[in-house]
Amino acid sequence: MTSLFGSRLTVINVGIEGFAAAVSDVGADVIHLDWRPPAGGDGTVARVNAMLLGDRRVDAANQRAMAAFLAVDPVVVGVRKASTVISGLGTHEHRLLHAGPPIAVAEMCGPMIGALIGAVLFEGWAETPETAEALLRTGAVNVDACHHHQAVGPMAGVISPSMPVWVVEDSHSGRTTFSNLNEGLGKVLRFGAHGPEVLARLAWMRDELGPALHRALRALDSGLPLTPIMAQALHMGDELHNRNGAATGQLLKQLAPALVRHAESSDAAARVIEFMAGNDHFFLNLSMAAAKLRLDAGSNFEGSALVTAMARNGVRFGIRLSGTGDTWFEAAARRVDGLYFPGYGPDDAAADLGDSAITETAGLGGFAMAAAPAITQFVGGTAAAAVANTRRMEAICVTRNEVFSIPIIDFASPPVGIDARLVLDSSVLPIINTGIAHRLAGVGQIGAGITSAPEMCFVAAIAGLAMRMGHDGTGPIIAAPGPVST
Amino acid sequence: MTSLFGSRLTVINVGIEGFAAAVSDVGADVIHLDWRPPAGGDGTVARVNAMLLGDRRVDAANQRAMAAFLAVDPVVVGVRKASTVISGLGTHEHRLLHAGPPIAVAEMCGPMIGALIGAVLFEGWAETPETAEALLRTGAVNVDACHHHQAVGPMAGVISPSMPVWVVEDSHSGRTTFSNLNEGLGKVLRFGAHGPEVLARLAWMRDELGPALHRALRALDSGLPLTPIMAQALHMGDELHNRNGAATGQLLKQLAPALVRHAESSDAAARVIEFMAGNDHFFLNLSMAAAKLRLDAGSNFEGSALVTAMARNGVRFGIRLSGTGDTWFEAAARRVDGLYFPGYGPDDAAADLGDSAITETAGLGGFAMAAAPAITQFVGGTAAAAVANTRRMEAICVTRNEVFSIPIIDFASPPVGIDARLVLDSSVLPIINTGIAHRLAGVGQIGAGITSAPEMCFVAAIAGLAMRMGHDGTGPIIAAPGPVST
Repeated sequence: MTSLFGSRLTVINVGIEGFAAAVSDVGADVIHLDWRPPAGGDGTVARVNAMLLGDRRVDAANQRAMAAFLAVDPVVVGVRKASTVISGLGTHEHRLLHAGPPIAVAEMCGPMIGALIGAVLFEGWAETPETAEALLRTGAVNVDACHHHQAVGPMAGVISPSMPVWVVEDSHSGRTTFSNLNEGLGKVLRFGAHGPEVLARLAWMRDELGPALHRALRALDSGLPLTPIMAQALHMGDELHNRNGAATGQLLKQLAPALVRHAESSDAAARVIEFMAGNDHFFLNLSMAAAKLRLDAGSNFEGSALVTAMARNGVRFGIRLSGTGDTWFEAAARRVDGLYFPGYGPDDAAADLGDSAITETAGLGGFAMAAAPAITQFVGGTAAAAVANTRRMEAICVTRNEVFSIPIIDFASPPVGIDARLVLDSSVLPIINTGIAHRLAGVGQIGAGITSAPEMCFVAAIAGLAMRMGHDGTGPIIAAPGPVST
Repeated sequence: MTSLFGSRLTVINVGIEGFAAAVSDVGADVIHLDWRPPAGGDGTVARVNAMLLGDRRVDAANQRAMAAFLAVDPVVVGVRKASTVISGLGTHEHRLLHAGPPIAVAEMCGPMIGALIGAVLFEGWAETPETAEALLRTGAVNVDACHHHQAVGPMAGVISPSMPVWVVEDSHSGRTTFSNLNEGLGKVLRFGAHGPEVLARLAWMRDELGPALHRALRALDSGLPLTPIMAQALHMGDELHNRNGAATGQLLKQLAPALVRHAESSDAAARVIEFMAGNDHFFLNLSMAAAKLRLDAGSNFEGSALVTAMARNGVRFGIRLSGTGDTWFEAAARRVDGLYFPGYGPDDAAADLGDSAITETAGLGGFAMAAAPAITQFVGGTAAAAVANTRRMEAICVTRNEVFSIPIIDFASPPVGIDARLVLDSSVLPIINTGIAHRLAGVGQIGAGITSAPEMCFVAAIAGLAMRMGHDGTGPIIAAPGPVST
């Protein structure tokens, strides 16, 4: 086994042992911690967390990580074919990217398998869904997490080499992140659909939408800065995870003239504008890439308890901390508590899915819910609860993002920077606004709601950070857990 | 003198006698009421108002008027040259329309004179500003209120025969209203500027913008219904008077594809889209025309105390009631209490100006301010005050507009339907969010703020309605006012 923290694919599995085998199947190193939650927080984890809370090195590292996060200026500079910009996704590598922490094909949920089948068909690596699935199950097509390639994707989050991707660049450091283009609602790949209309839309996005957006962006001198659009959208009822209508409108306002001037034809320009105007989620993928760009800048600060990723693969929820590098700390993904579309209910739902919780990790989505009281029509709850959710997240965040403000709370800035120590200490879990996918491939979205990151992820992360920082080593945590709650 | 209520141009002047002469100068019949406010509301007006409050005929008439108001479905069906659609504005009539109640040229404020000079130049009726002003001052060019021609215009509100105007139609009754197209900020006609760049922009709006919008609207089967756009905008931080960015974005989303498909060239389409995208107030004139369309439907219900217009000409503020036909009840226009742009202060300000208070009359703007807490950055105050303003307007409104809702107050609908009796009874004056014009022609907007309709307008209106409804006749009101407050 390699060093616990040296390898990108080290996974610490806490609790249910069955997960560990699955993770090791995909080639990752796995450490299984036979841990169970302490009663009332009065156990070893609470004691270790108290040590970390008293450790000034962690506070100092958090400050440095947050400064790096806040210094980022995300600018969308182009739309490129994934294979030409994403490392490890060359056209001859037969690799596909998916949402969440790494997961073996054998374990995947319906929507994710369906989306991967669609991507294999889209790439022309197979002719039928059956042969596509066989390629995946035999390992002839490699799969990996988007997050391992500076990318993020909503729901199944599948990115294949030929797909167009947004390129978002930090104007200061030149660092980049990527996300796919949003397909809209209905039968779409990200919910696992892969019928002819889905593949036809993907081909149009590759051949017309992507190049048109790229030409428009190149016509703007230095790309399109995303922070002003996002700040404005927070004044217009978006929280930039499940409400992106205002940001999409701002994007359209800024791109449409250049789109028209540089289109191949009037009809092509009209089709592109119609597609963007008809999909209020179109900006979501940019919101996600901007969030990841900030969080990547805040990553790898030795000792920092800052959460740098929250992601779900439909089976497990994983988080990363700045101070523990690329290690994923995982727990079972939850069902989402929400409002279902007519004809659907909780039994139809897949578990929590997608990279889109990167928005909450960066202080948007549920953390900025006070900006978007209208979202309660979509995810449930009351306007007062929306405001209260933002207020509650202050308890687990280290600062506020001063580039944003929320009018209804007298222009207070939303909280940002989840400190894993504060999550355990307060028992306030990060809130996530999210869509609900049907558990079967291709049915699509069946609702939306509110969920939270599982506490067990934070228990594992704090254990990992404590080991690394020399607080009591691993012994007591693993060997002497608090009494099991009965 | 014609019958008090038979003529469209009858004006009841209450209080300062100087106004009466000015109004009669423009050919209107004037009745001067030598009234002064009662102390503590315990005078004749309060007594007469109490009689009207107890008069079930008024309640019943209000109900019928509001039902007509609420039944309207405003749809923008085209953009036409004003002379072809607005009666009395034929190209050979040498007439110009302006905002507010009627006013003689000799009395007008700077921005309004400046705008009229610009319109004379734009029409080619004169070659220089000096000769244009002479034409206006000698009466060779006739001026009349927009409201007398089913039209409304923000600030100076000048509409000339060649200008393109929005045509907004009630899909049920076929009734129409009109408004000019918004020019954006900076040097613009509505603030009295009339330099070459202003006239060039007006020419472009006439030759390219108007026809392009018209072709796009005609390409939509039955025009573009405005209520869904306005309802959505109220969920996105607009109050549809001083914040129209979301509504403008929705308008662009819906029109852009047809604009591109039916443009004369890609460059023309790009120019039109750029102009709309660069002006967050572009939707204001549609909001105003939709408001007037609803209020016109609620007009002329015998006995109703419903306020059907509030408008300012920069000198006087005028209101109309449903139950008193086309009579204007006027008082001196107020200064606006607001935030000034750097370098300007209250001494630079023109008095309250423009037809845009038609939005508040229809339950938008200040009445829907809870939907737009971000507006406090523009007009002053706190988010809590914005919510409180909407709540306070409930005291003077007869119902709520159920087609709209405001998320932050748990989707409550905004109050609508100002009852003049309730204004006097509660001493709650209708709130108005508005821009502040410089008092000199052409300087432009120098701030924005909050004002309210003058109480004296409501005193005069209630006196007029009481006479008409036979409550104590005119004698006691005019001859026996309450004791003057000292």
